[in-house]
Amino acid sequence: METSYDTLLKFELPEIIYGLGSLSQIGQCARRLGGERIFLVTDPGVTEHGWVDESIKYLEKESLKHVIYDNVVTNPRCFQVEQGAKLYNQKKCDVIVSVGGGSPMDAAKGIAILVSNHGRIHDYAGCNLITQPIPPLICVPTTAGTGSDVSQFSIIGDPRKKIKMTILSRAIMADISLIDPRMLQTKPRELMAATGIDALTHAIEAYVSSLAWPLTDPHAIHAIELVFANLQKAVDTRNIEALEGMAIASLEAGIAFSNAILGAVHALAHPLSGVYDIHHGIANAILLPMVIRKNLPHAVQKFALIASAMGLDTRGMSDVEAAEYVPQMAQELISNLDLPTTLSEIGVKAVDIPAMSRDAAQDLCMQTNPHCYGIEEIESMYREAL
Amino acid sequence: METSYDTLLKFELPEIIYGLGSLSQIGQCARRLGGERIFLVTDPGVTEHGWVDESIKYLEKESLKHVIYDNVVTNPRCFQVEQGAKLYNQKKCDVIVSVGGGSPMDAAKGIAILVSNHGRIHDYAGCNLITQPIPPLICVPTTAGTGSDVSQFSIIGDPRKKIKMTILSRAIMADISLIDPRMLQTKPRELMAATGIDALTHAIEAYVSSLAWPLTDPHAIHAIELVFANLQKAVDTRNIEALEGMAIASLEAGIAFSNAILGAVHALAHPLSGVYDIHHGIANAILLPMVIRKNLPHAVQKFALIASAMGLDTRGMSDVEAAEYVPQMAQELISNLDLPTTLSEIGVKAVDIPAMSRDAAQDLCMQTNPHCYGIEEIESMYREAL
Repeated sequence: METSYDTLLKFELPEIIYGLGSLSQIGQCARRLGGERIFLVTDPGVTEHGWVDESIKYLEKESLKHVIYDNVVTNPRCFQVEQGAKLYNQKKCDVIVSVGGGSPMDAAKGIAILVSNHGRIHDYAGCNLITQPIPPLICVPTTAGTGSDVSQFSIIGDPRKKIKMTILSRAIMADISLIDPRMLQTKPRELMAATGIDALTHAIEAYVSSLAWPLTDPHAIHAIELVFANLQKAVDTRNIEALEGMAIASLEAGIAFSNAILGAVHALAHPLSGVYDIHHGIANAILLPMVIRKNLPHAVQKFALIASAMGLDTRGMSDVEAAEYVPQMAQELISNLDLPTTLSEIGVKAVDIPAMSRDAAQDLCMQTNPHCYGIEEIESMYREAL
Repeated sequence: METSYDTLLKFELPEIIYGLGSLSQIGQCARRLGGERIFLVTDPGVTEHGWVDESIKYLEKESLKHVIYDNVVTNPRCFQVEQGAKLYNQKKCDVIVSVGGGSPMDAAKGIAILVSNHGRIHDYAGCNLITQPIPPLICVPTTAGTGSDVSQFSIIGDPRKKIKMTILSRAIMADISLIDPRMLQTKPRELMAATGIDALTHAIEAYVSSLAWPLTDPHAIHAIELVFANLQKAVDTRNIEALEGMAIASLEAGIAFSNAILGAVHALAHPLSGVYDIHHGIANAILLPMVIRKNLPHAVQKFALIASAMGLDTRGMSDVEAAEYVPQMAQELISNLDLPTTLSEIGVKAVDIPAMSRDAAQDLCMQTNPHCYGIEEIESMYREAL
């Protein structure tokens, strides 16, 4: 230990069950949480690849009834969450199971909030505003990146107001995260690349966060190692061991960021998805190298260790020398994955930057960034990424 | 990822709250778990150092009533657990809080089992035999080593039968582990040394366990690093940063072993404490270097990484060369801490070895050791440590 901690530090996780074929446990898990009538939140893509049918088979094996809600899109919307909660209540369900990527998981959390708390989802945007416990929740992630299955976050959009709302509360942590890396095999190439960079962003932001501590650091660092060792191969070949590496990377990055929170990449990415409906992983991929460059002077030693985790032989280098490789190595990986590298490529217009900058400055994630940027600095960061 | 996992892997933890002064949260935590009348399990040493009075102050601040049960000794006994459960029921308590080292924590878990499950504590010795959920449980560790505050284990002795019973169940995991490193300042030197070696043993056994995986490995390795960086200084000087290092080491070793389980050191240590009432940390300290030597060929690569975590510069060494330093480095630390290094020093007699060996061969912890030793091998291990 080099430093003593002057604030209370917290660490909390769902029960985690991991393994090839672990989807078969979904019925027993739902049963163990007291379920009789399961509310299954998913999306049409997951259904198409057969994972919903397989899930239903295991639920029926435990004699569980089920209701499917699959009206969820990328960047889930407030009205979808309201509709889901209404259906849950109508059908008198008792356990929520989400099978899908970040969008169905975040939607499931939003539905869970409304089922047991009054009002609209907007009332819970912010930190620790949920007063009533949610119904039992099982998350089965089908992408490797979001970490929503282990996190205390849910991000829900309001397309009318063009905003993304960040809901942060221990109350919305799942009871069980059930991770079956087989499910990663059916994802399109670009989605796998984007979610992988999301995991990398979680790990880096959690590692340099002002709330990082020894319980989050080893997971953050290991997640960075795993992304650099496996993401390119997973995207190019769908090799099952590389996919397992990415499943663990996503999990460990999720463990780290749920407990150490995030930083400026996420603060700037949320308004982008609110205004332009951009996939969150793509927004992160564009912003990450630039934000790292800005953050470097505020966490040199930690970025030097990140360089080493990325695979750089840092022997004989000063911390500053090693740290300076980090944005470049991140950029190389992102470019090799054929992800966009500028905001203008994905249609972002300079005219929206002032409004987005105001939202980014208010974002919860900015508070734990190693340096707190003001609105003008954020504007110039968006312009640099344009 | 080098390997794919062919079994389901699990990871589960209590909510963890850590920090200097965090004891002040005890009332709010008990209130949050629904408490009105708190059953406080502790021991006379903890009371003497003022921690019980301080705890009561925080409970009373939340208007919580309390009942104190401090009839707990090192290696807690079945009859103490039965007596505690009777008192809990008589006084109509609703939340259990343990303030103390491994013994009060294990006793609190035993009491919790009997409060909500029928029969005797003996009925639950073994794996996953508890059917009813226990009352809400908060553990506040006052030593750095046992990891009972985050583990699924409770070890209860039956002095008449001269056995220690290993109870392993997710049902006995605490709800909250509240860790205030200030509390380590009042422990005697030998106890601090012995519990520190217990933490080291947990970390090493969890790291080479057949159930180890990426969620347990980083914590095991980091715990080993922290013990080698902090234990000697903590014991010699009670420097608060060194004590914090040991608090985190104990926590991370606990996280690792609760999820990856343990090995032969623990399998052989349990009968020693059953027959001779030896402090568990002392038993581990005597057995650890010898068991590492036996285990070396079965986990060479992992022991090479342990050598590096212990502080050895392993560059240029083969795995075998590096691994061979591990028992010697463990032995040196243990000797420098003035802990006993042979079983005969603490009164163990050769005549008891056959019976202890039969018990050790049956111990749950042997199943996850990198090699499963038979009774004859165990006998010769005890004789070697004599």
